[in-house]
Amino acid sequence: MKKIAIIMGSDSDAPKLEKAVATLEQFGVPYELHVYSAHRTPEEAAAFAASARENGFGAILAAAGMAAHLAGALAARTTLPVVGIPIQSGPLNGVDALYSTVMMPSGIPVATVGIDGAVNAALLCIEMLAISDETLAAKLEAARSAGRERVLEKNSAIEQRNRL
Amino acid sequence: MKKIAIIMGSDSDAPKLEKAVATLEQFGVPYELHVYSAHRTPEEAAAFAASARENGFGAILAAAGMAAHLAGALAARTTLPVVGIPIQSGPLNGVDALYSTVMMPSGIPVATVGIDGAVNAALLCIEMLAISDETLAAKLEAARSAGRERVLEKNSAIEQRNRL
Amino acid sequence: MKKIAIIMGSDSDAPKLEKAVATLEQFGVPYELHVYSAHRTPEEAAAFAASARENGFGAILAAAGMAAHLAGALAARTTLPVVGIPIQSGPLNGVDALYSTVMMPSGIPVATVGIDGAVNAALLCIEMLAISDETLAAKLEAARSAGRERVLEKNSAIEQRNRL
Amino acid sequence: MKKIAIIMGSDSDAPKLEKAVATLEQFGVPYELHVYSAHRTPEEAAAFAASARENGFGAILAAAGMAAHLAGALAARTTLPVVGIPIQSGPLNGVDALYSTVMMPSGIPVATVGIDGAVNAALLCIEMLAISDETLAAKLEAARSAGRERVLEKNSAIEQRNRL
Amino acid sequence: MKKIAIIMGSDSDAPKLEKAVATLEQFGVPYELHVYSAHRTPEEAAAFAASARENGFGAILAAAGMAAHLAGALAARTTLPVVGIPIQSGPLNGVDALYSTVMMPSGIPVATVGIDGAVNAALLCIEMLAISDETLAAKLEAARSAGRERVLEKNSAIEQRNRL
Amino acid sequence: MKKIAIIMGSDSDAPKLEKAVATLEQFGVPYELHVYSAHRTPEEAAAFAASARENGFGAILAAAGMAAHLAGALAARTTLPVVGIPIQSGPLNGVDALYSTVMMPSGIPVATVGIDGAVNAALLCIEMLAISDETLAAKLEAARSAGRERVLEKNSAIEQRNRL
Amino acid sequence: MKKIAIIMGSDSDAPKLEKAVATLEQFGVPYELHVYSAHRTPEEAAAFAASARENGFGAILAAAGMAAHLAGALAARTTLPVVGIPIQSGPLNGVDALYSTVMMPSGIPVATVGIDGAVNAALLCIEMLAISDETLAAKLEAARSAGRERVLEKNSAIEQRNRL
Amino acid sequence: MKKIAIIMGSDSDAPKLEKAVATLEQFGVPYELHVYSAHRTPEEAAAFAASARENGFGAILAAAGMAAHLAGALAARTTLPVVGIPIQSGPLNGVDALYSTVMMPSGIPVATVGIDGAVNAALLCIEMLAISDETLAAKLEAARSAGRERVLEKNSAIEQRNRL
Repeated sequence: MKKIAIIMGSDSDAPKLEKAVATLEQFGVPYELHVYSAHRTPEEAAAFAASARENGFGAILAAAGMAAHLAGALAARTTLPVVGIPIQSGPLNGVDALYSTVMMPSGIPVATVGIDGAVNAALLCIEMLAISDETLAAKLEAARSAGRERVLEKNSAIEQRNRL
Repeated sequence: MKKIAIIMGSDSDAPKLEKAVATLEQFGVPYELHVYSAHRTPEEAAAFAASARENGFGAILAAAGMAAHLAGALAARTTLPVVGIPIQSGPLNGVDALYSTVMMPSGIPVATVGIDGAVNAALLCIEMLAISDETLAAKLEAARSAGRERVLEKNSAIEQRNRL
Repeated sequence: MKKIAIIMGSDSDAPKLEKAVATLEQFGVPYELHVYSAHRTPEEAAAFAASARENGFGAILAAAGMAAHLAGALAARTTLPVVGIPIQSGPLNGVDALYSTVMMPSGIPVATVGIDGAVNAALLCIEMLAISDETLAAKLEAARSAGRERVLEKNSAIEQRNRL
Repeated sequence: MKKIAIIMGSDSDAPKLEKAVATLEQFGVPYELHVYSAHRTPEEAAAFAASARENGFGAILAAAGMAAHLAGALAARTTLPVVGIPIQSGPLNGVDALYSTVMMPSGIPVATVGIDGAVNAALLCIEMLAISDETLAAKLEAARSAGRERVLEKNSAIEQRNRL
Repeated sequence: MKKIAIIMGSDSDAPKLEKAVATLEQFGVPYELHVYSAHRTPEEAAAFAASARENGFGAILAAAGMAAHLAGALAARTTLPVVGIPIQSGPLNGVDALYSTVMMPSGIPVATVGIDGAVNAALLCIEMLAISDETLAAKLEAARSAGRERVLEKNSAIEQRNRL
Repeated sequence: MKKIAIIMGSDSDAPKLEKAVATLEQFGVPYELHVYSAHRTPEEAAAFAASARENGFGAILAAAGMAAHLAGALAARTTLPVVGIPIQSGPLNGVDALYSTVMMPSGIPVATVGIDGAVNAALLCIEMLAISDETLAAKLEAARSAGRERVLEKNSAIEQRNRL
Repeated sequence: MKKIAIIMGSDSDAPKLEKAVATLEQFGVPYELHVYSAHRTPEEAAAFAASARENGFGAILAAAGMAAHLAGALAARTTLPVVGIPIQSGPLNGVDALYSTVMMPSGIPVATVGIDGAVNAALLCIEMLAISDETLAAKLEAARSAGRERVLEKNSAIEQRNRL
Repeated sequence: MKKIAIIMGSDSDAPKLEKAVATLEQFGVPYELHVYSAHRTPEEAAAFAASARENGFGAILAAAGMAAHLAGALAARTTLPVVGIPIQSGPLNGVDALYSTVMMPSGIPVATVGIDGAVNAALLCIEMLAISDETLAAKLEAARSAGRERVLEKNSAIEQRNRL
């Protein structure tokens, strides 16, 4: 199976990525963790992205805050799908990171998830791998059903007592 | 090859999708066009998404404006990757559609591109298929190189005359 | 008397709805509580809305945060009035939920109240029932008068001492 | 049948209300048109609202732009449901009117629709009357079905030619 | 000397007005405190404003949050200058109150100060009275000089040690 | 009678001020027009403000766009009331000018009106003069009544035909 | 004298830069024009920045719209000052470009000017060169005086006729 | 070597500037600290800026919050480069200060850094001095390399354990 690269722009973003890692592990999808900054280590970030396909990666998950250029900088060097997580940090609450990540120029897409959306970023990578992997697709369906069941159980509980 | 489903929430969004269609055709990726509204035809939208994987689709591209629920409504019924294009329409200029598309709850991801980002939405679908398709990956690399060449040509021209 | 359905998109929103429940109880309006997610349990949410009128409901009150599709998804399946409460959660402080709830396409209205506006959402449902229920209308007038009295008492106190 | 009051804050808003009037006429719901400004004719606006219930109105639809106080000012004088349409006018594109209309204090609800959402405001009033009017409810269902059919026809056309 | 009316929309806003009261007392300007809500006690608010000039007031200072209609509602009933303080409360941080207070229709002005700007609102009222009151004008100049001195002292201290 | 100073930051703002001038003329209030830029002619702007009171002015009306420092810069040099008009210009539609004008530090108030609110700025200056001028106050009341009449006439017309 | 590099992210931004070029020519400051995209030609952009100091440049002026990474990407490869112009393009009116340009991480500054602020970007580069160039500093002072004179002339004209 | 002037609009902003001071000290660049308010001590602020070049300053770093006029007011009196730091304070989180600092009129540039961007403001001043100072340029390169090394070390650590 292809690996997922998880790149954070700063190790201070690491706590925001814990659920992304946990999600990949839950699905048995291999991953690698890296710290590359679009601005402090631009060559290393570029080199990683440029060789990611040949190194066995299927998608890149990139998380950054503020003027969040990381996902775009990686996407500029690879044609693998890049999933961007705008990180909430600083006074603008992640709106800056959202705009910097999602408003990419034509030709260089970034698949953007919600601010701090680590779980969804991981799921999106898994969904991409599952396009051609029926086993993984079945796991996704199972997880989706489990999520549905959890809501229905809560609903049953609240319906029965009809109180908050 | 898997097909791409292009779903628009209203046929008034059709002009915004022309470049997405052109991009898929340029890469020889098969696609189907549909008009399904999350609010006016919710059953049909749901039914389409629920059977999309078994019907041979690899990804769904969904475009909607304002309270843009379409991409999320489709994502709720499939574990195929769903790419959402927030459409600029109405007084809020697409900020409403961007927030409605990208700020999805944990468990149901939507891969969001920039407002009116039709080309990037199509490229993102192609990149997903290319994870396991080397021919398509090579085409993406070629297109990327061509895009680079176009900028370099413009640069050469402007460098030579050193005038705008 | 018709019942009010109170639907929350996640049981984590329950504390935000306590005052809505208390308001309905204060007016003696029957209600039912449910947890249905537009994205995690879309079929159940749809089925509930589709049969709400025949099941004796007069209006639906729906609360959700972020890409708050719940009120719209319910409104898409019923012609009962749907009152939407945008919930403040996540980094965008409820602006995302407000836009997702209020900017509905023509044909599928959602009666939106302020962010976290649980009391007003309940009052709005009661006002709707009171259109054809003079007893309930009288209770609304009495509650309004009581609210006015509370302000006037505070005014009298502050006027007398002319100090904060 | 109860009447609907359509109040505009300025006669310059009249063109924005044409579809609201057309919608009420389509459903055979009686209405009255008025121009009352919350700031230029506050007494008249207040007097109208205060006597609206006894004058046979079932709901009030109020449209205003910028610091859109009209819907709230009417709601402060009646316990009939008040539906507010924030009008797009001036440099803030209706965001000012949306906030002024929807962020009401506890106790005085306004049922807010999207910016310039005249059709939905009228439909919401009709839905309120239809809570206790089965004929009207049936008309709403029929209109909803017709809206669904229009989308499905467009879908069929676009599916058949698979071109935009 | 004319009095200043300080009106708060809710007694929960009282702490935000302490500095306004202190400023008026510092300048020896008489004032009256009132709690009137534009929505909960609209008649009382209107009656107060309508008779404020004849009751010896020179200006009205009004503070309200969220859909802050209070200053505008008072301005609609008087031609005395009304100074509006948008109060920071609720999820929108006072932007809603700012827009609701400042974006008034032509003909009904509100002199708006910054969010939570109690001192400046009081100073503005004093400046208005001082247009035709040289003693008060001199006090304003003295206070301004004192404010300047305080900054210059801090500057001297920091310049001398050249450290933060 | 005291004069009103109308200061524009750039002569390109002149068309936005025509209604302010017309309003002052309608009330017979004397005024002077000046072009002073807070950034291009800071000394002249400062000198004007510093001597405005002794030169017979009662209030200063200042209009500027973008980083609209003009009203604040004038207010820093005088204790006359300064009314600021944020001008809509440039890509931020006047939100920048609104924030720059209204969010003044404690001690230096600016009475801010709505974006492009020239009429209200002029009325506010007149209201300030009318605090101690009964003739002017009577004119304000008359103008207010005339405005009310204009709305009531429009209302009568629209009520009679009950059509838009 | 050191040269100024003017880099545009796309040749469609060229018209926005004409005044920057004209300003540099007016001051006799040598410049070079280039088209480099942070995403389409990342290597060339990086290479240019990395060798800019040794190639005789004193500062880099970079203009880009939407997710405007260009200025930051250049700043990541040089310790020359980089001046960023956020370009107004697309539905977000340049707010996206402003945030993407200005909210840089610690260690990699970008000197950001206003949206579409081409003249100021050029002046800023000239001011930087003029720190150690008295002739250039004198030209800046002269230009500043000329700008002041132009405003004063307009002021004289408008003061004399006291009409807009 | 030219000195850097660090001006804060209020001594309450001092903690936000500690890292700017530390950065200048790290590079051995001389600086002076001042407290000048654009509104409370406008003459002193103006006088300082007007004589800054002749007093041996190479650049001015100015920090202010809310209606942050300080950087612009200084830039209006000098042709030295002025670097503006918008300070996060008050309910608008620094967006007001950002707009007030960056949206300057043509002719009077302010080099704006991110909200609370003290380190980058200091680095920008150093980069300006380093245009003509090779020793300082070498120190900047060394600091940049050190920053790169710190990220690479964190990357190595996280790569080795492949855990967050």
